[in-house]
Amino acid sequence: MGPLARLTRVTDGPATHWVLTLVCADRPGIVHALSGALVDAGGNITESQQFSSEDTGRFFIRMQVEAAATPQQLAAHLHPVAQRFDAEWTIDVVGRPLKTLVLVSKAGHCLNDLLFRRRSGQLSIEVPLVLGNHRDLAGLAGFYGVPFEAHAVTSPQTKAAFEQRVVAAVEEHDVELVVLARYMQILSPELCERLAGRVINIHHSFLPGFKGANPYRQAHARGVKLIGATAHFVTPDLDEGPIIEQNVVRVDHAASAGELVATGQDEESRTLTRAVGWYAQHRVLLDGRRTIIFR
Amino acid sequence: MGPLARLTRVTDGPATHWVLTLVCADRPGIVHALSGALVDAGGNITESQQFSSEDTGRFFIRMQVEAAATPQQLAAHLHPVAQRFDAEWTIDVVGRPLKTLVLVSKAGHCLNDLLFRRRSGQLSIEVPLVLGNHRDLAGLAGFYGVPFEAHAVTSPQTKAAFEQRVVAAVEEHDVELVVLARYMQILSPELCERLAGRVINIHHSFLPGFKGANPYRQAHARGVKLIGATAHFVTPDLDEGPIIEQNVVRVDHAASAGELVATGQDEESRTLTRAVGWYAQHRVLLDGRRTIIFR
Amino acid sequence: MGPLARLTRVTDGPATHWVLTLVCADRPGIVHALSGALVDAGGNITESQQFSSEDTGRFFIRMQVEAAATPQQLAAHLHPVAQRFDAEWTIDVVGRPLKTLVLVSKAGHCLNDLLFRRRSGQLSIEVPLVLGNHRDLAGLAGFYGVPFEAHAVTSPQTKAAFEQRVVAAVEEHDVELVVLARYMQILSPELCERLAGRVINIHHSFLPGFKGANPYRQAHARGVKLIGATAHFVTPDLDEGPIIEQNVVRVDHAASAGELVATGQDEESRTLTRAVGWYAQHRVLLDGRRTIIFR
Amino acid sequence: MGPLARLTRVTDGPATHWVLTLVCADRPGIVHALSGALVDAGGNITESQQFSSEDTGRFFIRMQVEAAATPQQLAAHLHPVAQRFDAEWTIDVVGRPLKTLVLVSKAGHCLNDLLFRRRSGQLSIEVPLVLGNHRDLAGLAGFYGVPFEAHAVTSPQTKAAFEQRVVAAVEEHDVELVVLARYMQILSPELCERLAGRVINIHHSFLPGFKGANPYRQAHARGVKLIGATAHFVTPDLDEGPIIEQNVVRVDHAASAGELVATGQDEESRTLTRAVGWYAQHRVLLDGRRTIIFR
Repeated sequence: MGPLARLTRVTDGPATHWVLTLVCADRPGIVHALSGALVDAGGNITESQQFSSEDTGRFFIRMQVEAAATPQQLAAHLHPVAQRFDAEWTIDVVGRPLKTLVLVSKAGHCLNDLLFRRRSGQLSIEVPLVLGNHRDLAGLAGFYGVPFEAHAVTSPQTKAAFEQRVVAAVEEHDVELVVLARYMQILSPELCERLAGRVINIHHSFLPGFKGANPYRQAHARGVKLIGATAHFVTPDLDEGPIIEQNVVRVDHAASAGELVATGQDEESRTLTRAVGWYAQHRVLLDGRRTIIFR
Repeated sequence: MGPLARLTRVTDGPATHWVLTLVCADRPGIVHALSGALVDAGGNITESQQFSSEDTGRFFIRMQVEAAATPQQLAAHLHPVAQRFDAEWTIDVVGRPLKTLVLVSKAGHCLNDLLFRRRSGQLSIEVPLVLGNHRDLAGLAGFYGVPFEAHAVTSPQTKAAFEQRVVAAVEEHDVELVVLARYMQILSPELCERLAGRVINIHHSFLPGFKGANPYRQAHARGVKLIGATAHFVTPDLDEGPIIEQNVVRVDHAASAGELVATGQDEESRTLTRAVGWYAQHRVLLDGRRTIIFR
Repeated sequence: MGPLARLTRVTDGPATHWVLTLVCADRPGIVHALSGALVDAGGNITESQQFSSEDTGRFFIRMQVEAAATPQQLAAHLHPVAQRFDAEWTIDVVGRPLKTLVLVSKAGHCLNDLLFRRRSGQLSIEVPLVLGNHRDLAGLAGFYGVPFEAHAVTSPQTKAAFEQRVVAAVEEHDVELVVLARYMQILSPELCERLAGRVINIHHSFLPGFKGANPYRQAHARGVKLIGATAHFVTPDLDEGPIIEQNVVRVDHAASAGELVATGQDEESRTLTRAVGWYAQHRVLLDGRRTIIFR
Repeated sequence: MGPLARLTRVTDGPATHWVLTLVCADRPGIVHALSGALVDAGGNITESQQFSSEDTGRFFIRMQVEAAATPQQLAAHLHPVAQRFDAEWTIDVVGRPLKTLVLVSKAGHCLNDLLFRRRSGQLSIEVPLVLGNHRDLAGLAGFYGVPFEAHAVTSPQTKAAFEQRVVAAVEEHDVELVVLARYMQILSPELCERLAGRVINIHHSFLPGFKGANPYRQAHARGVKLIGATAHFVTPDLDEGPIIEQNVVRVDHAASAGELVATGQDEESRTLTRAVGWYAQHRVLLDGRRTIIFR
């Protein structure tokens, strides 16, 4: 079972609107087999996107299906297709909130955007816990009714303890996604591996330009005319994980490094929120070092 | 046979890469039936996009298929599916240049963009003729090796004669698309009806704002902060036809109406060229007053 | 004294960084006279933007000046220049928070953005009061420590009472700007006149397209490919006041009217916040029906 | 005399609309002294932009001035101010076409854009010669009536000969700007030094990401979601010269490296043309490794 399978958290009861993803080696007949299984299950395909990767020879499909069925009934029809094509697949209820753990430090703009949109119904996530290495955002989390814990990270020992708390929280709350919402510590390679494909970070520059620390200072020194933000999966290679979404905004010579920070925060929030929203809707699939985004 | 069918111009010989569109009332089983027919014809679906319109209850699909077959062989498999779902459908060879008649007046930026991209291989059209109501762009057409004719439009009689020449050219060259590349005359309702769904215009504003003449002067007077361009199908209702593509660009208080004209020309060219390119690839389908764009 | 003069709220004590605006009929010598007065006052011009309007023949300038002086000292030097050119002018301390009254209804995205940025130091406003015609946003205001009052508007009488409360609050708190942050009632012509040049509204479309109610439903029906938001001054002519800022975002055929609403909210918040920020920094000047924006 | 002075090519006869740039160490009184000199010369400032660089302590100003004067008369008034502040300055007639040498290889999109806009009056340049290391674009240059020469660059000897031809052409035609319009050879350090501040290149990526060869292939491999183009001054450090303008465009996972090339060409042309246009209007000033752009 690959990383996609781990995403699946089908509710037990019957539902009517389903989202299905399937990834396998590309060969003729997949769509026909899949649509046949869905017809047999009484389903109607309302949305479908597919992609055949020339880089990896993989086939990717995401479908939304209306079907009055239990997940067991659907799975019984889909399982033989998945076996025949040796495919990884997931099925979920459309709109089910994704269990999301958020890590933060001091800057609140990304957390604020995530929680505001969750409350207003634009972002289908459930946040059982916010973990910070500072206390600054306790009030913001509290306002939105989300539990908050702070554990200082000031030494290898406290860093290890923080990461153990992350792992425990993931298990305790059955967390499906970890979001680094301007969490300013680097995750250990072990934690990156353990949560591979399930951690999204927002980097405050337009990658691959300006990796590492202080990207806005670098951007100012280089005199760029656009600054940006990049939401990407976290891997042990810092700032090298697969890119999910990027945005830029125009700046000019008059902007100090400090003003670039303020200007860039908008792009950071919107870029991260959009990446999280797509992930929660199973629109983000991995193709080697690249992502397939079925918008 | 509906408007879509008129688009089809299948080459007679065998090909290997096909583009298929199909539109019908939405109901379960269409994708399965279609993909089954393609499997039977030895085809592999390499690209697929679909949409179910809540406004009209119509189902739209565009597929690219690899199949070593003649068009007759493919059609023999697809015809029963189209009949069963009472669908309009087209099949074409991927990348076949669309026969395109271009109408112009004096401004050359849109014609230049279309012809430059056609030559550089980015735009899959074939231009058998450019018709102008002024002679100004004869040299530009000539440089790109495209026949050019000018017929002045200065009275109801000359206007009628111009439109008769359009109709004759459409028939003579088997024209599939007519592009108004800043052609500054209004087409008669009769011609609009006759060529319905086959004429694309570029309007030099962000519709529905600033319809009619002198949109840049209107934009300056209103003090807008963005100006734009709109590519749309031509209908007898001036500037009210279905929108295909729109773009905007930022302007500020210092821009005179004349400077807005210069700034807007970039958006006009790119917007029109993009719309024509999508149309040539069968990516533009009509859903009542709206367009479906399978990008 | 014109509308600009009313904006001025110079602190009494000395400061070192000043912002100056001056508007008058355009003629030679203004910059020289102004810079001479500033040199005499011991000032150094650190930022300067000017514009001569061909439409109205007016000259506009905004300067930032470093000078260790009291406002009285600066005014003593500037007054003769203003008199000589018959100019309206203002002087203020750079970064002084603008006293801003916010009116809201039920939707919180604009209020959230304004208050979040005020707290994080990106938006130089002070909010003595939020007035709603519904209670929904009391909690949000409370979290940011801002007083909130709700007064239902359900009849001509309650509407008049609400507006009287607005007028009273403006006087009581010495309010310099009133922001309609998705306040869904139309202000009376009398109130518009009374607060002319001091009320900013966010309209949820790209004006001048889709004026009036339900712009997203209109946008969906018309099948536009970009939707937008417009921040403008409020005048008695609904949605016709001078435009301050506009933004758009791309949408496609798959977006329902409801999804357009969600998508558009981002543009609404950022557009309104940006307009308010520019106004607070004296970067927005009126030139007839148009605005001069010194960004 | 610094690099700015070399730009000045004042016509000998009188004119009425002038553009002035001045750069010096920042200190109080510059604007006053400059505006005083202009008032004395009978001038009226119609446009003015200034900037004080915190990085370098330099002051930059660009003014447009209406004055019925000869350049000698203006210079006589301005010279004492420039001396007093130890400033580099230029004065030119607004709209005078800049003498521009264009270097090309095989790809014509940038040359096409430059020449089309020059002809349509949107770009104030004069092109005495296009030099290519291939013959492919001879026809395009010819259509626009511009002399074209090709000299193959296939060895150190032919490269040196090509560069000698560049130097000779610069002297022969009094060239003020050299534009590398997708010229695919690296200039020698000696030529870069010799023409410092007068050579603009278009790099087909969003610098500082993807320096060097094949940026679109790199961009595809990295899976970026936006691709871009960067116009910059050429220095001996490849792709490290001061940035003048940048633009990006959205791409998705389905775009092959080849499709990225086609998509990126639009951004290349518009970015280069914009940079050249600003330079021709004396809107681009150098501040160390950064550029000041007075748009």
